[in-house]
Amino acid sequence: MLSFQTHFETSQINGALLEQTFESLQEESQTIGYYTLPASSLALCAKVRGELLPKTTFFDTIAVVGIGGSSLGIKAIDRLLRASTPHAKKIVYFENSDPLSIAYTASHIEIAKTLFVVISKSGGTVETLSIFKYLIATFEMTLENSQQVIVVSDEGSILSQFAHHYGLQRFAIPDNVGGRFSVLSAVGVVPLLVAGFNVEELLEGAKGFMESFWDRKEDHLLKKAAFYVHNAQSLPMNVLFSYSDAFEELGKWVVQLWGESLGKRNEYNERVGLTPISLIGSVDQHSFLQLIIEGPLNKTVTFIRIEHSCDELTIPRLSLPFLEKVDFVNGYPFNTLINAQCQATMQSVRQSGVSVDEITLSAIDPTTVGEMIIYYELLTSASGVLLGVNTYNQPGVELGKQILQGYFSE
Amino acid sequence: MLSFQTHFETSQINGALLEQTFESLQEESQTIGYYTLPASSLALCAKVRGELLPKTTFFDTIAVVGIGGSSLGIKAIDRLLRASTPHAKKIVYFENSDPLSIAYTASHIEIAKTLFVVISKSGGTVETLSIFKYLIATFEMTLENSQQVIVVSDEGSILSQFAHHYGLQRFAIPDNVGGRFSVLSAVGVVPLLVAGFNVEELLEGAKGFMESFWDRKEDHLLKKAAFYVHNAQSLPMNVLFSYSDAFEELGKWVVQLWGESLGKRNEYNERVGLTPISLIGSVDQHSFLQLIIEGPLNKTVTFIRIEHSCDELTIPRLSLPFLEKVDFVNGYPFNTLINAQCQATMQSVRQSGVSVDEITLSAIDPTTVGEMIIYYELLTSASGVLLGVNTYNQPGVELGKQILQGYFSE
Repeated sequence: MLSFQTHFETSQINGALLEQTFESLQEESQTIGYYTLPASSLALCAKVRGELLPKTTFFDTIAVVGIGGSSLGIKAIDRLLRASTPHAKKIVYFENSDPLSIAYTASHIEIAKTLFVVISKSGGTVETLSIFKYLIATFEMTLENSQQVIVVSDEGSILSQFAHHYGLQRFAIPDNVGGRFSVLSAVGVVPLLVAGFNVEELLEGAKGFMESFWDRKEDHLLKKAAFYVHNAQSLPMNVLFSYSDAFEELGKWVVQLWGESLGKRNEYNERVGLTPISLIGSVDQHSFLQLIIEGPLNKTVTFIRIEHSCDELTIPRLSLPFLEKVDFVNGYPFNTLINAQCQATMQSVRQSGVSVDEITLSAIDPTTVGEMIIYYELLTSASGVLLGVNTYNQPGVELGKQILQGYFSE
Repeated sequence: MLSFQTHFETSQINGALLEQTFESLQEESQTIGYYTLPASSLALCAKVRGELLPKTTFFDTIAVVGIGGSSLGIKAIDRLLRASTPHAKKIVYFENSDPLSIAYTASHIEIAKTLFVVISKSGGTVETLSIFKYLIATFEMTLENSQQVIVVSDEGSILSQFAHHYGLQRFAIPDNVGGRFSVLSAVGVVPLLVAGFNVEELLEGAKGFMESFWDRKEDHLLKKAAFYVHNAQSLPMNVLFSYSDAFEELGKWVVQLWGESLGKRNEYNERVGLTPISLIGSVDQHSFLQLIIEGPLNKTVTFIRIEHSCDELTIPRLSLPFLEKVDFVNGYPFNTLINAQCQATMQSVRQSGVSVDEITLSAIDPTTVGEMIIYYELLTSASGVLLGVNTYNQPGVELGKQILQGYFSE
């Protein structure tokens, strides 16, 4: 379960604006695909369990070959649920065109035991396909009817046609689901389910939150989006301060979702957008906190914490000579310490005049992770409506791709 | 070697202001300790090699227990030099009060073979000491004259007194060296040298860049600081876009250095500061780039790339059916691809009107890493002078610590 608390003033927010936003989301949910994934992907799970899973028991490692929307969401869920799913198969990621990373990851897999999941929405991602070629050549992989390669891509994409040509197992990303909104489609379902995560429970969590939103029980989300957009000029940055290392990849997923969805030209051709920043507590209390508290008041901060940790590690009742001044935490679980650090930091940040809200996860489990995913997707969509942008495209990155190709064809 | 190229207009910058800034840095270098570390730490290296190193040959893992300035710099150098120093001992990090991370890291070390380096400038960091107590209790460590524990702290701190009490090996951080500027002191020198990194070459690189700066050969750095500070209102964010995964931790180190040094109240009690954002290419081209190119023009971007990779991994000359459209990179090294991606992205970012500069490392080696460290420290100091802040304190984080202690004493 998630609970939400808002510490900034939302009473001035125009109620009619929230109604309009809600209606716009209702309307776009008829055509934008991610809204229906929590329900529709349950059928996909059944299919994967029935047809694919029995063929994959031999493999002990899943290698995801994908970048951006084709890896960030999988990594986020993998990282969050890893501690509570100790039997899950290892997942490794081939993401960047960085030769050192590719060489390192490739040298740490046992090829015979590795199942490759090649993911690209468009099917033509240069990093993904170059790495895939490198893996084929290095490991002398035979493609014809291989059970070792699964392809996830748009139906009809060049990658999908390639997979069909070789008789590879393939799964389609619905046309109306964008890459950064695709984690609950085959993109996330296939590798996570094959690895052994409880994807059905994740989808149920997502579905439950979506229903709760349509039932008007999550209007706090609309108010937050309205507050963020209303103050976009003076508060251009939105900080996520998550109190567990396990949120590091979720933070990166939110950064993509928020940054790439909202940073664009609006209907009047004006540049708009909000800049996401992901921090981890308590580590970043020793890094970024000073800037939040005493620097310019140009940021909002969302504190995220976990009520119950699945680990009851305790600070020993050990008093060391000369170090008695930190004995005040002796005998407490580390989770109590990190939650108290979150509370204390939040209080000091609020006192400095920063707009703050908090999200509490009862625990890190598939349900709360599914809820978090839909929460951030809906928050992004609502903010996109309020900013007047097309939340689901990314026209700004095309030029760089053309320039790149130009370099090589010269 | 580093080379620098600036693509924003610095001709309007007041020459007298640069002179004043340079003089202020000269003046503060008489009292602020980090300026002299590249030279003075060479003597420390000799001492560590002569006295400490022979006692540590038995250990195959170094466990750094520290947070913020006591871990970020070590991690940055470790990550950058790891690929070119394959014989270096493994370093693990106990940083966060997150129970899952502590449990995970503790379960992955072989206690008999692990040397602990406990680092805290003040000596009273609650995360560090709580974790240290947990390790003592869990592994039933005997402290009396232990060769397995090294302490790095301010001379006379409570942690230093504790180490003295038990006859532990200890190294002092000079009083006038702040935590986030301390990586070239014993903080970084001791664990990195014991692990087997070429710290002397790193220090020589740092020393060389410092001398070059005092010789007025790096005035581009003063101009950049002046440009950033002059435009702090309209361009409150400074993005680092580094084209290699190996820069991930250096990025976090810069974030602390830049954020915590500059984000504070100036001499007129006004809130000032600049917000650092660290990105990795090409991965974040698929995440954050859209926001940079089409979102509000409120960011500067520094592109960092490596000319020569130590890995000559090549994209195979493999043409796959239906995937021919990405054959344009066939036969090229991945390093050529990632550098071309950097160039293409930089060009598209510049065309969109964003202020851009670039730093090129001839290669990732101890010399260039040492140069990068001093470059960013000097850039921070220069910006601090121009903003009129005390670059070296962090008064804003004290309140949270008091509130925390209050919770537990209730």
